Amino acid sequence: MKRILLYLMVVACCLNPAGCASAPQNTVTQFSTIDALLAGVYEGQTTCSRLLEYGDFGIGTFDSLDGEMILLDGKIYQVRADGKVYRPSADHTLPFACAVAFRKDLSLPVSTDTDFGGMERLVDRAAPNMNLFCALRIEGHFAYMKVRSVPAQRKPYPPLTEVTKNQPVFELERIKGTIVGFRAPQFAKAITVPGYHLHFLSEDFQAGGHVLDFSMTSGTVEVDLCNRFLLVLPGEESSFGSADLTRDRSAELEKAEK
Amino acid sequence: MKRILLYLMVVACCLNPAGCASAPQNTVTQFSTIDALLAGVYEGQTTCSRLLEYGDFGIGTFDSLDGEMILLDGKIYQVRADGKVYRPSADHTLPFACAVAFRKDLSLPVSTDTDFGGMERLVDRAAPNMNLFCALRIEGHFAYMKVRSVPAQRKPYPPLTEVTKNQPVFELERIKGTIVGFRAPQFAKAITVPGYHLHFLSEDFQAGGHVLDFSMTSGTVEVDLCNRFLLVLPGEESSFGSADLTRDRSAELEKAEK
Repeated sequence: MKRILLYLMVVACCLNPAGCASAPQNTVTQFSTIDALLAGVYEGQTTCSRLLEYGDFGIGTFDSLDGEMILLDGKIYQVRADGKVYRPSADHTLPFACAVAFRKDLSLPVSTDTDFGGMERLVDRAAPNMNLFCALRIEGHFAYMKVRSVPAQRKPYPPLTEVTKNQPVFELERIKGTIVGFRAPQFAKAITVPGYHLHFLSEDFQAGGHVLDFSMTSGTVEVDLCNRFLLVLPGEESSFGSADLTRDRSAELEKAEK
Repeated sequence: MKRILLYLMVVACCLNPAGCASAPQNTVTQFSTIDALLAGVYEGQTTCSRLLEYGDFGIGTFDSLDGEMILLDGKIYQVRADGKVYRPSADHTLPFACAVAFRKDLSLPVSTDTDFGGMERLVDRAAPNMNLFCALRIEGHFAYMKVRSVPAQRKPYPPLTEVTKNQPVFELERIKGTIVGFRAPQFAKAITVPGYHLHFLSEDFQAGGHVLDFSMTSGTVEVDLCNRFLLVLPGEESSFGSADLTRDRSAELEKAEK
């Protein structure tokens, strides 16, 4: 009996790509590529439960582009186009998502008014190696927070720049909450968003979305430096394989993300 | 005692990033980026023994750019600038390397004269999803094989295009051996060599190098389709962090690889 248990535990450990009990450290795992999302590859390719094997912290979007995803403290939240926050089921799927087992390497206090650019400068000074990935957890009080979400799409899927032309934008004031996001190196630009890519979730779990702008009054910026990046590409059932991922989509990304 | 053994096995399993007994399937693991190599980041960052945790098959180069690396059937070979094949020690380091636990998904017989371009067309027809990675194991008889190696460099390291200007080139005729390599998607271009990147090792382990050209008369092309790509970046002790990896180095790559 003990031998069988031993065997089962070792097998389970090997089968779980994220390892036993916790995901690998300092590893940003990403499902699909940002350029595939720009090209309209919106079919969910991995489930919420599978994503959690790779971390407790992250961002992404849902099947058919149905809102912005925030993974915080091991729980997945969906900010849909109505601006409200939902809790997707474990088998809900995602076409694009990043996750990390967040462990802070740096903790940067914020005590004066700090906007998006100010936060970037703060992090870039503290984590000057721009050739590494890092995850950012920014918790605090925000005088202003401008977020957007995206509405679910129908096939044939339009490219992301078409969708974001009419994106619902929400301006929040005097709100507590957490920004969840990543800074990625320039060399990863066709694969992920280079530079900063942030989503927000309010402390009361009532609002959030893809961050367009903000002004923070106080709080803390936590940085997890990550030297490992695991890219998991969609299988043959996805339109990923036939997407044109050869051209430079930097200008499209700029339009879609800002 | 049994409990202690159980504990030790599970802990060992968790500590080994490549999992128990074997590396993760369908995962190409790469240490550092091709653009960092082009920029002259030649300091070894991982050891041969650590590389083997990620696969039994792969290519790369050695600390200070001391030759071409071939990982075949779990053994690492070093083709130095004299064209000879050496066996590096387990703690020898590599600045750039790719590895995979090779498991063939496709087996393509070759029975007519096939050159580099012909092999590319053969693989592209059989594995048409150009947005996935694949590993290639090409075993057979070669009427012609043109390979190069690179000589070890001293600090301050020159960029790769400077080194390859005077690279030793070897032309082999009527030789049996194995080509070890990868096909990578265009979107990964700053990170790895897009398209085909092949090294060769002769059956008698006496010759090899980075493949520039060949003509195969008979043999088999085995393809391992890989939907996962793990990038492991150098730590702070490397010059990687200060390398300029923001500009497009496609033209440099073309010069250095061809």
